[in-house]
Amino acid sequence: MLFCNIGLVDENFDYKENMYVGVQGDRIEYIGKEKPAKDYGEEYDGSRKMLMPGLVNAHTHSPMTLLRGYAENLPLDRWLNERVFPFEDRLNCDRAYYGTMLSIAEQLKSGTTSSSDMYFFQDGVLKAVKDAKAKTNFSRSLVSFGDDDFYHNDRVKEALEAVEKYHLTENGRIKVDMCLHAEYTNTLKFIEQFGEYTKDKGLINHIHLSETKSEHENCKQKYGKTPARVFYDAGAMDAQTLFAHCVWIELSDIELFKEKGASVAHCPASNLKLGSGVCDTYTLLENGINVAIGTDSAASNNSLDMLREMYLAAILPKGINNKADIITPKQILKMATRNGALAQGREDCGLVKEGFKADVIVLDLNKPNMYPDFDVINNIVYSANSSDVLLTMVDGEVLYRNGEFKYIDVEKVGFECNRIVREVVKEVTK
Amino acid sequence: MLFCNIGLVDENFDYKENMYVGVQGDRIEYIGKEKPAKDYGEEYDGSRKMLMPGLVNAHTHSPMTLLRGYAENLPLDRWLNERVFPFEDRLNCDRAYYGTMLSIAEQLKSGTTSSSDMYFFQDGVLKAVKDAKAKTNFSRSLVSFGDDDFYHNDRVKEALEAVEKYHLTENGRIKVDMCLHAEYTNTLKFIEQFGEYTKDKGLINHIHLSETKSEHENCKQKYGKTPARVFYDAGAMDAQTLFAHCVWIELSDIELFKEKGASVAHCPASNLKLGSGVCDTYTLLENGINVAIGTDSAASNNSLDMLREMYLAAILPKGINNKADIITPKQILKMATRNGALAQGREDCGLVKEGFKADVIVLDLNKPNMYPDFDVINNIVYSANSSDVLLTMVDGEVLYRNGEFKYIDVEKVGFECNRIVREVVKEVTK
Repeated sequence: MLFCNIGLVDENFDYKENMYVGVQGDRIEYIGKEKPAKDYGEEYDGSRKMLMPGLVNAHTHSPMTLLRGYAENLPLDRWLNERVFPFEDRLNCDRAYYGTMLSIAEQLKSGTTSSSDMYFFQDGVLKAVKDAKAKTNFSRSLVSFGDDDFYHNDRVKEALEAVEKYHLTENGRIKVDMCLHAEYTNTLKFIEQFGEYTKDKGLINHIHLSETKSEHENCKQKYGKTPARVFYDAGAMDAQTLFAHCVWIELSDIELFKEKGASVAHCPASNLKLGSGVCDTYTLLENGINVAIGTDSAASNNSLDMLREMYLAAILPKGINNKADIITPKQILKMATRNGALAQGREDCGLVKEGFKADVIVLDLNKPNMYPDFDVINNIVYSANSSDVLLTMVDGEVLYRNGEFKYIDVEKVGFECNRIVREVVKEVTK
Repeated sequence: MLFCNIGLVDENFDYKENMYVGVQGDRIEYIGKEKPAKDYGEEYDGSRKMLMPGLVNAHTHSPMTLLRGYAENLPLDRWLNERVFPFEDRLNCDRAYYGTMLSIAEQLKSGTTSSSDMYFFQDGVLKAVKDAKAKTNFSRSLVSFGDDDFYHNDRVKEALEAVEKYHLTENGRIKVDMCLHAEYTNTLKFIEQFGEYTKDKGLINHIHLSETKSEHENCKQKYGKTPARVFYDAGAMDAQTLFAHCVWIELSDIELFKEKGASVAHCPASNLKLGSGVCDTYTLLENGINVAIGTDSAASNNSLDMLREMYLAAILPKGINNKADIITPKQILKMATRNGALAQGREDCGLVKEGFKADVIVLDLNKPNMYPDFDVINNIVYSANSSDVLLTMVDGEVLYRNGEFKYIDVEKVGFECNRIVREVVKEVTK
């Protein structure tokens, strides 16, 4: 496809007008002011439209779309124990498949081209990813209650099977990460064995960190150190690490992030909605940490709309710190795209740049909320919403365009999800 | 129009399935489970759709859409003095007309059926409201620098002309309020005269209150009392009053609101983005105050999307107070609709109820973010976005439907706004 005469967010997150972008196979081959001689197939009319890197959702739990609207107005512990865990106990691969399909549909429609998905039921989740041709870093969430020997543990067995079976399949669209659910859901022995095992596997460690105050404080009571320090000492940060949430981390934790090159998945909506607090992204960014943005699950957000999430990430630090001039729209746009790709270990994603994967989206500039066009970067961050997304391309293939999905029948998937949630609720309340 | 087989948010903000709603003239005439015998004209197929009261934007400044993206990353005082005021000095009725048109388009598209609009250039603003058949409480913003005699003041003359010329025109769609810009932009003499004059006119007083900490503290230094107390003592709360922002108000101020029945327009996005802080809506609601929601202007938001604003209002108090169980989705939905209508003095608006004005919107439930349909009220508040809005009706007339506006040519209006902003920026930087 050749995008013609289109606005462009370039690799420096500057805006350029009237550009040509040629996509060959799964890559961006040409970017320029001139129309290339080469025939790229369809010529896409980009007038009053703009092209930018697809959004990267750095932390989610896809099948939990099934719980959307089911677990409301509860703090994290009650939300988990009274609603989420009993519901999840009734899930299976078939149910997870439909939940993931719904999640992918919502994400493509709102401009997300890749997500870091922490869950279980890998054969269901990854069948959906494969069928929809989506891009995902999947990780099988590990907890160790009762069975805390990493080397003789059924969940670990599943996690390693996922790596074996799916890592770098589907033209690399599927990657498999390793995952510790959190400090408070694992024993120290297990965490240490996890660190030992993952150290040199070249996989990413995806871990929930200091999401709530009680979790953070309880850890300090128990070990005399913060959760981040527990992970550091256990070697669990020796592999490339992505920490989700980080609401209650301390300055000393940020030093550890710096030393180890750990990334953060900032999930502002979920942290607010569950009453967990607000992550101090300003201090993280000032310290050079790679901060990405995630929606968390639809059970705690309740949407997977990265445009809305990006907006929240943009305005929250200003309000919380009573400083309007911190964190620029450019920084935010980079967090929502390139930083996410880096957190996923996808060096060739997250920028509109020649040679990079063609994970791009087109936004409509002919919408009331996108006028006037005095500063398009500001408009994307502060004013765009998912109804502005006209096209979503992953690995050079158009997966969503003008309300239509290439591989997903939303009405059917929605119908199945409605059915599943009713069945599960009946089972839970029996 | 007869909405058939449609989901419905009823007058108690409960959700009902498969309802019929008949609109006759500008009013809702019939609501029921059965199809009425009467012919209401077009039968609208409501399957997989839902009807709810239109959103009420309780605080905005419409023509400031022209400044979208122009004044960024600045605190309120610099934002006003360095960017907003010089820009506004170059506006006129013609320019304000196009800015208002753009504002109305964005609001209709995102489900807003009425707004409280504080600005000037009334002949431009209200020509747009009239042309677009929108619903607005307009108020001419009053400041008193230099000329602080209320009875011999050109701005007051304009404000009273606006009342004379426009109040309760266009089938009541246009109402005119009185407006004090704020405590810090007026002298005590002027505030007292304003209170004396407005006491018994039956108009609403629309006033910015305690938006920033410095504004609030400076007032206490100057008068030994809070801005709310200054207004109270001056009689400026004796008429029905709508206070915008209220970020830094105190418990004693809430007592004054209670006594006088004042409403609050909560503007979470703008307060965050300008680094002003977060209004404590939880305490206001606990004290029985009528809290509505507003977007403020596109210069500080930067969108006029009340669905996004409603979402922010829903999750912010939970995060800020570290309590996930405060303020329910039903309360939020009421704030964004009925409470706004009451704050506008429109008793027969803001509910889907027989005999009420037909200010309603239709949302698409066949969207990924609206599945599963376990709890539609939760989905509206936490997961809906403006791409779900299929139809917006004001006073029984469909003004927006499936991407098309009845009276607004978005491309033309957008083109004019692009032109105006470039002209103004050239004039400002000369």
